[in-house]
Amino acid sequence: MNDQAKTIGTSKPSGKASAKPDALVLFMPSGRRGRFALGTPVLDAARSLGVYVESVCGGRGLCGRCQIVVAEGQFAKHGITSAAGHLSAWTETETRYTAKRAMEPDRRLSCHARIQGDLVIDVPQDVQINRQVVRKRAEARRIERDPATHLCYVEVELPDMEKPLGDADRLLAALRRDWDFDDLAIDFHLLAQIQPILQAGDYKVTAAIYDDHGSRHVIALWPGLKNAAYGLAVDIGSTTIAAHLSSLLSGRTLASAGAPNPQIRFGEDLMSRVSYVMMNPDGREAMTKAVREAIGVLIGKVAAEAGVPEDEILEAVFVGNPIMHHLFLGIDPTPLGGAPFALAVSAALTFPARDIGLPVNQGARVYILPCIAGHVGADAAGATLSEGPHRGEPVTLLVDVGTNAEIVLGNKHRIVAASSPTGPAFEGAEISGGQRAAPGAIERVRIDAHTLEPRIKVIGADEWSDDPQFDEAAASLGITGICGSGIIEVIGEMFLAGIISADGVVDGTLAARSKRIVKDGRTWSYILAKGDGGGNPEIRILQTDVRAIQLAKAALYAGVRLLMDKLGIDRVDRIRLAGAFGTYIDPKYAMVIGLVPDCPLKAVAGVGNAAGTGARMALLNRGHRREIETLVRQIEKIETALEPRFQEHFVNAMAFPNKVEPFPHLAAAVTLPKADLETVAGESPRRRGGARRNR
Amino acid sequence: MNDQAKTIGTSKPSGKASAKPDALVLFMPSGRRGRFALGTPVLDAARSLGVYVESVCGGRGLCGRCQIVVAEGQFAKHGITSAAGHLSAWTETETRYTAKRAMEPDRRLSCHARIQGDLVIDVPQDVQINRQVVRKRAEARRIERDPATHLCYVEVELPDMEKPLGDADRLLAALRRDWDFDDLAIDFHLLAQIQPILQAGDYKVTAAIYDDHGSRHVIALWPGLKNAAYGLAVDIGSTTIAAHLSSLLSGRTLASAGAPNPQIRFGEDLMSRVSYVMMNPDGREAMTKAVREAIGVLIGKVAAEAGVPEDEILEAVFVGNPIMHHLFLGIDPTPLGGAPFALAVSAALTFPARDIGLPVNQGARVYILPCIAGHVGADAAGATLSEGPHRGEPVTLLVDVGTNAEIVLGNKHRIVAASSPTGPAFEGAEISGGQRAAPGAIERVRIDAHTLEPRIKVIGADEWSDDPQFDEAAASLGITGICGSGIIEVIGEMFLAGIISADGVVDGTLAARSKRIVKDGRTWSYILAKGDGGGNPEIRILQTDVRAIQLAKAALYAGVRLLMDKLGIDRVDRIRLAGAFGTYIDPKYAMVIGLVPDCPLKAVAGVGNAAGTGARMALLNRGHRREIETLVRQIEKIETALEPRFQEHFVNAMAFPNKVEPFPHLAAAVTLPKADLETVAGESPRRRGGARRNR
Repeated sequence: MNDQAKTIGTSKPSGKASAKPDALVLFMPSGRRGRFALGTPVLDAARSLGVYVESVCGGRGLCGRCQIVVAEGQFAKHGITSAAGHLSAWTETETRYTAKRAMEPDRRLSCHARIQGDLVIDVPQDVQINRQVVRKRAEARRIERDPATHLCYVEVELPDMEKPLGDADRLLAALRRDWDFDDLAIDFHLLAQIQPILQAGDYKVTAAIYDDHGSRHVIALWPGLKNAAYGLAVDIGSTTIAAHLSSLLSGRTLASAGAPNPQIRFGEDLMSRVSYVMMNPDGREAMTKAVREAIGVLIGKVAAEAGVPEDEILEAVFVGNPIMHHLFLGIDPTPLGGAPFALAVSAALTFPARDIGLPVNQGARVYILPCIAGHVGADAAGATLSEGPHRGEPVTLLVDVGTNAEIVLGNKHRIVAASSPTGPAFEGAEISGGQRAAPGAIERVRIDAHTLEPRIKVIGADEWSDDPQFDEAAASLGITGICGSGIIEVIGEMFLAGIISADGVVDGTLAARSKRIVKDGRTWSYILAKGDGGGNPEIRILQTDVRAIQLAKAALYAGVRLLMDKLGIDRVDRIRLAGAFGTYIDPKYAMVIGLVPDCPLKAVAGVGNAAGTGARMALLNRGHRREIETLVRQIEKIETALEPRFQEHFVNAMAFPNKVEPFPHLAAAVTLPKADLETVAGESPRRRGGARRNR
Repeated sequence: MNDQAKTIGTSKPSGKASAKPDALVLFMPSGRRGRFALGTPVLDAARSLGVYVESVCGGRGLCGRCQIVVAEGQFAKHGITSAAGHLSAWTETETRYTAKRAMEPDRRLSCHARIQGDLVIDVPQDVQINRQVVRKRAEARRIERDPATHLCYVEVELPDMEKPLGDADRLLAALRRDWDFDDLAIDFHLLAQIQPILQAGDYKVTAAIYDDHGSRHVIALWPGLKNAAYGLAVDIGSTTIAAHLSSLLSGRTLASAGAPNPQIRFGEDLMSRVSYVMMNPDGREAMTKAVREAIGVLIGKVAAEAGVPEDEILEAVFVGNPIMHHLFLGIDPTPLGGAPFALAVSAALTFPARDIGLPVNQGARVYILPCIAGHVGADAAGATLSEGPHRGEPVTLLVDVGTNAEIVLGNKHRIVAASSPTGPAFEGAEISGGQRAAPGAIERVRIDAHTLEPRIKVIGADEWSDDPQFDEAAASLGITGICGSGIIEVIGEMFLAGIISADGVVDGTLAARSKRIVKDGRTWSYILAKGDGGGNPEIRILQTDVRAIQLAKAALYAGVRLLMDKLGIDRVDRIRLAGAFGTYIDPKYAMVIGLVPDCPLKAVAGVGNAAGTGARMALLNRGHRREIETLVRQIEKIETALEPRFQEHFVNAMAFPNKVEPFPHLAAAVTLPKADLETVAGESPRRRGGARRNR
């Protein structure tokens, strides 16, 4: 690549250079710009500015990866007035390419299109080479690409008795000559294959180079031009493992799939799995084997769905909570089960996929995001990378709710993280009618404050229960229980309707107004669904259910509040709820029950599998790996168990919404019961003093 | 380590520094010197000058590896007049150390002995820690040490909930803090072991760091102070595999052993093994498996002999000819069987020993020396490293004789290399009475020029055949054949006695003088041993045997001459004969039959397993790895088959000694037959012109 860039602001006046005619070129979406001598290939201009444009064939017009678009509409805006004739004419090479492969009509091959005048160039993030059927809609997020693995086509010198360099050595010389790779090592497993592959390709071959973190290796080799390379992003959840298959060349996600984590048979939640390892000498090994096998099956599934041979998968990025992380790596997780919750390894890791027997290319590499702390894992790191609290000024609260809630709070100046022991209530465990989110589970609830009659919505049916068609749908599904988001809503609605007090007591006096309020021993309950006497049970919200939710939400809130104390703040600007639970709960009810602090409702959003999105970002851009590695070292880790104020916050957070803070935004959005507004939403000198103390 | 060195010539005058009292310290044998502030530990002074002094415990006085001697006798010579009080007093730590371990009385621990005045310090290359029985005399050569693998003792911070770095990460932090390792990676197989090892060692552990070629890895870890680390140097010959086990910490060779190469059952010589691969689809795999297994057994043998657990072997360095090299690595060697003799890989290689299943530490690394050309392998590179033609002015000829003779010629200015197809005659094949060197084989021969009666010496008997005790010894051994060195001598003596002419014809007219000259069909033979009619055969040197030796020695000589032509020289200063054959042949007879060019007899020497010595050098000093890697790129490779003059030299070299050059040194040492002196040893205008042409 030549180096004709003179970036604005850094170029120095030079008699020689300024004598040559040049042009201003602006690359979108990066916004990088520079002046280039007329005749410079657009690809070279992009490279010299550090704009990532893929090229497998090294500018030979064979691979079609380096497509660009002249963004005509944006010229005036960027001070460039006309593009007519500013790019060289269509070349024979491009005609030859489009005769074989599809290319959208407004596109050019940047290795052959040359700069003839000022230009705004759009670098598409989605270059289609094969008419591959994409069954899975790529996630909305556009990830700028700079992957660790590159395909590099080279033409290797023939063996020569007078210069008896080995085949491997001539391959490396070609990669140095054409691709500027200076210090490449070759994976041992390739050594015996180099000679036959060179011969099969008539000494024209494509090498896959893994280039990250100072390690540069030839990891795979094919005869001729290889124009396909894929990577996996995998989130190992304790319940579900989710995998996404993306093209490393186009950036697109081609397939996604999920599977239950088979470790569930060793223990439902994290701590029971740790106990299993403690009680069973082979427990760790069995769980490691189980999760790796399940991932192997999942890889086969996404590869088949996308029509991609497993051998073309060259990278796999993993996230998971610390216990999943350790078990996946084959590390004993028991030290994570008690203080000081010592991680065996916290930094990001890279190693060959064959070390753990994944069914991918023999040279493929694994990258695992760093863990933040003993309870705040690589999944939280992935979610942080995805949601980017560190990229802006707004103070962002990122919560991933599971048996432990992982909490990250802060902005570009400072970030703190902790985990809170919420227990499994939010996942439907410990709740009398609770169940996992599945067809038949109640997921939405509204209670009429006057009649105290509920309306419900059930997973699998489109209608609310007051719709005439609901009964039919419910009959076929059955109403089997209530899932996490339903629990949050029913508790929230019971509070808003006055069925439970701010302290969480079910008001027995209401039994006079509604038959749904019934006595259960010494406490009162609310009948949410009456049951049909057959397969569908009565679903009753017990006083103990309310207590379970109070404990869980107070733990989460106390953790959040502790982090706010650390930062010396008493409000957050944005709230991001990650994970399956976070995605399905209605932010309003999260705030009504006081799961999260008060915040404008519009600024609260579920963000789905943010950990998985972070894994995809690390897969497609090694800059994101450095970003999260650096950030994790900077994040301040708070161990809630060591903080005396945690208990205080916890007690005060038992109330609805809580007794810690005012909630002006919530009060503006819903009608809170009067008594509660008076008791807890007024001025509180203690709280204010507390915030001041921590400033 | 502090950095108090001001090396002479580079130190700048500085008011502050020159105000402090300092002293001149000279380290032997390196000769490096510098001025150091009084009170500087000798170890720090050595480190800052780049003088290699081992230390496992990092200056805690525990490992005893950093011993030094004050070289009192050399003071005046180096301009230092007295050492009294120039080193700090004996410390309590040293007393504690010597209470537990042996240390020679004149030694000090350099981590605790501090500079108090001018000193000459001797760094011993052999530091004994355990009273290990050394059964194998270490080879005479003293190899300066700078191994790729270091043991580093560290005290790791305890897990801390407030700073939740993983155990692996705190280990790396300790290695950075105490040993300045900045960018260490940890081998994947260690990950799951770190936590239990740290706990077992109470967070005091010893890490083995492999640090070579920009790759820095933690490859092994032990609880507490580990004070033992070993390495292997292995020469994979086509006939014999030789292994040496050395301590990486003291540099001593503790055990050596050899074993037959089991590939012999697939083919006696190299080309028959290549043919075997061509004919058998699984041939390559079977031979790779066989040689790796044999090496595994050999490792067990040397480890047992030295009393070293295999787990403490952290490195293995290999040399071998190209075909052995490829088969060992699992690479198809068939391209080496024909032009263009393409090596699959020629550069030096490093990879984990577990990739080839060696029974050593799981993290041990393999280093393989580079190959020079398709017929000039890593063994020749090892021999070159050992004999060092590139280190001096004298033009050195290095020859390793096998089925192919590998030839290296040159000096510090320029080196050329080639191989000559000598065939197996020197190894006793194709010779009627030939056999491998083994008890009962004739190895020495003298023929009385008047009586034509021979005296012989047989392997396994100390006496010559004219000694009265010989018959008894011979009777118990039997005289079974003649080995390589015996063949060279009998041909040389036959020539000197006039039994064969300069053209190699057995003179039948001598039958009149001796019954040992007998007719065999149309040619004549010489009866070397009469046989006893029982188990011991008659050993007869046939005309065809003479011809076989003529062909072999002419091929070798022609190769040497071709290289001399390339360098434009007509004499060499030194000749080094490597390998088993080279070690046992008498240089005089090598010159009499014209195996090598004329040279002062004193300058010709057998050097034993030079390839193995080169491997040991690369094992103990990574500087030697860089040295041979650089040199191999600079060596000019000559393919004899492509050189038109090879055939001409070959034909002229068929004569004894040859028809190419004069041999003044040989003529001064032995009485050459008169006729021959007239025919070939006189002035030869053609040859002189030839030499001039190549200048």
